[in-house]
Amino acid sequence: MATRQREISVSEFFTKNRHLLGFDNPQKALLTAIKEAVDNSLDACEEAGILPTLRINIRQLAEDRFRMAVEDNGPGIVKAQVPKIFGKLLYGSKFHTLKQARGQQGIGISAAGMYGLLTTGKSVVVISRTGPGKPAHYYEIQIDTRKNTPQIIIDSVREWDPPHGTRVEIELVGTYKKGRHSVDDYVRQTAIANPHCEIFYSFPGGDGVQHFPRATELLPPEPREIKPHPYGVELGALIKMLKETRARNLAGALQHDFSRVSSRVALEICQAAQLRPSANPHSIAVNEAERLYKAINSVKIMSPPTGCLSPIGEEQILSGMNKEIPASFFTAITRTPSVYRGNPFQVEVGMAYGGELPADDLVDLLRFANRVPLQYQQSACAITKAVLSIDWRGYGLSMAKGALPAGPMSLFVHIASVWVPFTSESKEAIAGYPEIMRELRLALQDCGRRLAVHIRARRREVEEEKKKSYIERYIPHIGIALREILGLSEKVETELVTTLREVLERSRTTK
Amino acid sequence: MATRQREISVSEFFTKNRHLLGFDNPQKALLTAIKEAVDNSLDACEEAGILPTLRINIRQLAEDRFRMAVEDNGPGIVKAQVPKIFGKLLYGSKFHTLKQARGQQGIGISAAGMYGLLTTGKSVVVISRTGPGKPAHYYEIQIDTRKNTPQIIIDSVREWDPPHGTRVEIELVGTYKKGRHSVDDYVRQTAIANPHCEIFYSFPGGDGVQHFPRATELLPPEPREIKPHPYGVELGALIKMLKETRARNLAGALQHDFSRVSSRVALEICQAAQLRPSANPHSIAVNEAERLYKAINSVKIMSPPTGCLSPIGEEQILSGMNKEIPASFFTAITRTPSVYRGNPFQVEVGMAYGGELPADDLVDLLRFANRVPLQYQQSACAITKAVLSIDWRGYGLSMAKGALPAGPMSLFVHIASVWVPFTSESKEAIAGYPEIMRELRLALQDCGRRLAVHIRARRREVEEEKKKSYIERYIPHIGIALREILGLSEKVETELVTTLREVLERSRTTK
Repeated sequence: MATRQREISVSEFFTKNRHLLGFDNPQKALLTAIKEAVDNSLDACEEAGILPTLRINIRQLAEDRFRMAVEDNGPGIVKAQVPKIFGKLLYGSKFHTLKQARGQQGIGISAAGMYGLLTTGKSVVVISRTGPGKPAHYYEIQIDTRKNTPQIIIDSVREWDPPHGTRVEIELVGTYKKGRHSVDDYVRQTAIANPHCEIFYSFPGGDGVQHFPRATELLPPEPREIKPHPYGVELGALIKMLKETRARNLAGALQHDFSRVSSRVALEICQAAQLRPSANPHSIAVNEAERLYKAINSVKIMSPPTGCLSPIGEEQILSGMNKEIPASFFTAITRTPSVYRGNPFQVEVGMAYGGELPADDLVDLLRFANRVPLQYQQSACAITKAVLSIDWRGYGLSMAKGALPAGPMSLFVHIASVWVPFTSESKEAIAGYPEIMRELRLALQDCGRRLAVHIRARRREVEEEKKKSYIERYIPHIGIALREILGLSEKVETELVTTLREVLERSRTTK
Repeated sequence: MATRQREISVSEFFTKNRHLLGFDNPQKALLTAIKEAVDNSLDACEEAGILPTLRINIRQLAEDRFRMAVEDNGPGIVKAQVPKIFGKLLYGSKFHTLKQARGQQGIGISAAGMYGLLTTGKSVVVISRTGPGKPAHYYEIQIDTRKNTPQIIIDSVREWDPPHGTRVEIELVGTYKKGRHSVDDYVRQTAIANPHCEIFYSFPGGDGVQHFPRATELLPPEPREIKPHPYGVELGALIKMLKETRARNLAGALQHDFSRVSSRVALEICQAAQLRPSANPHSIAVNEAERLYKAINSVKIMSPPTGCLSPIGEEQILSGMNKEIPASFFTAITRTPSVYRGNPFQVEVGMAYGGELPADDLVDLLRFANRVPLQYQQSACAITKAVLSIDWRGYGLSMAKGALPAGPMSLFVHIASVWVPFTSESKEAIAGYPEIMRELRLALQDCGRRLAVHIRARRREVEEEKKKSYIERYIPHIGIALREILGLSEKVETELVTTLREVLERSRTTK
């Protein structure tokens, strides 16, 4: 048995478990490949301060075979980095950085290329230029799954028009469909959540190119990188940080390696832990580290800075929903940032109700994480669980045990974080950390209360309409009856009716 | 930007994403650690042909700190392998093997140790002996997360009583709770699904040791390893296999590297692909491989052998449910094996209805994969989705849109496979491959039809009871009335009543 034990490369692991990456069926595979390329393009443009223009192209080659291409006007990729970025899993710049980004794991685009290779035997094609005077580098790359390393098939310089940017092409077995989980829907939702982005989209069977123009010329403020917050650190991680710190003494290590630790706070922590601030951090024992860990959580430390987050904002959510959803009532909330396991995050909820939305269906839930639409695994997502955990009947909707509320409503829910805890590498659903669930519930309940006010007001309106129509209908008859009984003139009757209407109207509206 | 690109080790990845491994909250963390150790123990015992006896122990050290230990009577682990098995992610013997096992990924137990280290700074402790004459090796191990390699803290020989077996101890931050997602429940369900296993379980606050005796002295037949089936292979994988085969010619490669390919079938495939059977497999071009791929799927090939699977069986499921669930109607189905992506799998469903089960709650769903209970992520699981996709109202239960059916019912669903496609590394839910969904639905519907028959029969019985009681109640009165009207003797009246009762009884039962 012992001789059969061996190492498993991460690419072998994900080849066998490719549903973890979103490649479990052909429709999802096409979507995931495009999504990973778009995530990278948008991140690169924003980081370089460039207003993104994307060209997304899907070409059908056979019944189940497609060639997808995503081209951006980003800063381009340095030649030496191209093979690893597109041909090695777990390689990237965002994993070790604490700031909001779409990509985080260094898996996505290489995995898409790996899936393409697995299903069609074709290489990933990449062309990239870093500036107007620079050459455009053309690559064909295949991942060696046994070793998780890129194999370069072609490496050359090509003619290419754009002054800077990157284009990636992947051929894969897929299915192109319309509807709820479609690439079309993904592109539309991406445009809603990223109003600063321009997209040209061409797809099989479409006539020409669909254009999503920019809704704003303003880039969202670039999120700033932060250091970890002391409240989120765990004992084992703390021990490791102390071992590896470059600071010469304990107080310095606390100040330098964490955010929000001033010299005063560092001294307070050392004092609470009964450790000398000048102690050598590399020689802290495990039991001393335990005291330090407890001390950190007993001292009051400011919340982490939130410049690392870039929410969409209430205004943008409302204008996006207004444009796309035929409802009659809209509301949106951007909560103030909060923290889970030391990671800042922020919840936003938009709600559209009534109008032409179907009254008998379950509520339509649109989920987003760091401005990326989440289209699969709805039931596994913390967002869905938060919606299910609320009794919407109190807000005027109907709701069956264990099911989403029913009613003419669309819910838009966005979580922005320096590290979104997805339930799988395919980034389709968010894990239900208690702090995240709490913020989601608060935002949803807040919107729910506004909805209840609207529904109640609407109901009152309807009732008033009814009353008003009674008045309109019956008062003339009362006038006629009174005239006949009392023998009034027509003029007096008219006056009487007018007075009566005014009095009733007044009593109705003041009630 | 380029300089910040770097490799991410798989252990760094899973430290940051530890919810993927089931360590997202303290209650689940304790359960997951125990589960991973138990999985390994049961696999090792069964593979060595030993009837498993496990000792599971949870000791509470502080409010949120526990020390868990799992000890087995298995074959023990060769000294040299211990550090990597317990201190390196993606290392093991089962990943590259096609046969049913509880562990498959080579992540679980090392991840549990990593979590323990992260939250308490304490090493994993392992003691193992491979036979009565051999020394017992004692290890303390810590994973170096940056490099994903084991660091050996202590390596020594100790006194240890058991003649052979392995004991692992992990100290971790956790929560011990009773109820639905508890370790207690996990141990109980494990005993149901593994009647050949004996468990001694001691837990915080319990008085002494809880004993789950063996229900059978028979080991389940040891599943046999198989080769991949040709229908499941993908083009890219086929190209790789041809490149790496040890066979000298194409026909030989097909025969040798796949299951169910006889020399006749190999020739048929070559013919359909217009390739020479004697061609060198290492020099097959991509377009030739494409032809071969299409040819494979056009030729009729026997289903894969199913000796690689070890279902629980209808009888064992029924006896397990009978013992644990206070219902009045039981049924179970073991489907014949089927195949998804070349992997054999088999679905079993058990159903318990009525009796003392609560009539108004949603149905209680017990999910199992390769005899391991799945307690979390119910809504993300193919099993749940299959249950939701069926209209149970047709079988006599009530059901609201989007929710599980309601009624006095427990459903036991087991999937056995050489490779269970879990939706995350924590192995809590199964991905919904179409073939799996299909088998699940068929099994559930089959049980549903039996349930419907039972419910209808039960309803008829109740109605008959009612009719019968009418007869009982009214016939004597008719007798009295007739006697008074017709002036009959008491004897004649008694005869009349008896006759009347018989006639009505006959007409009722023949209806």
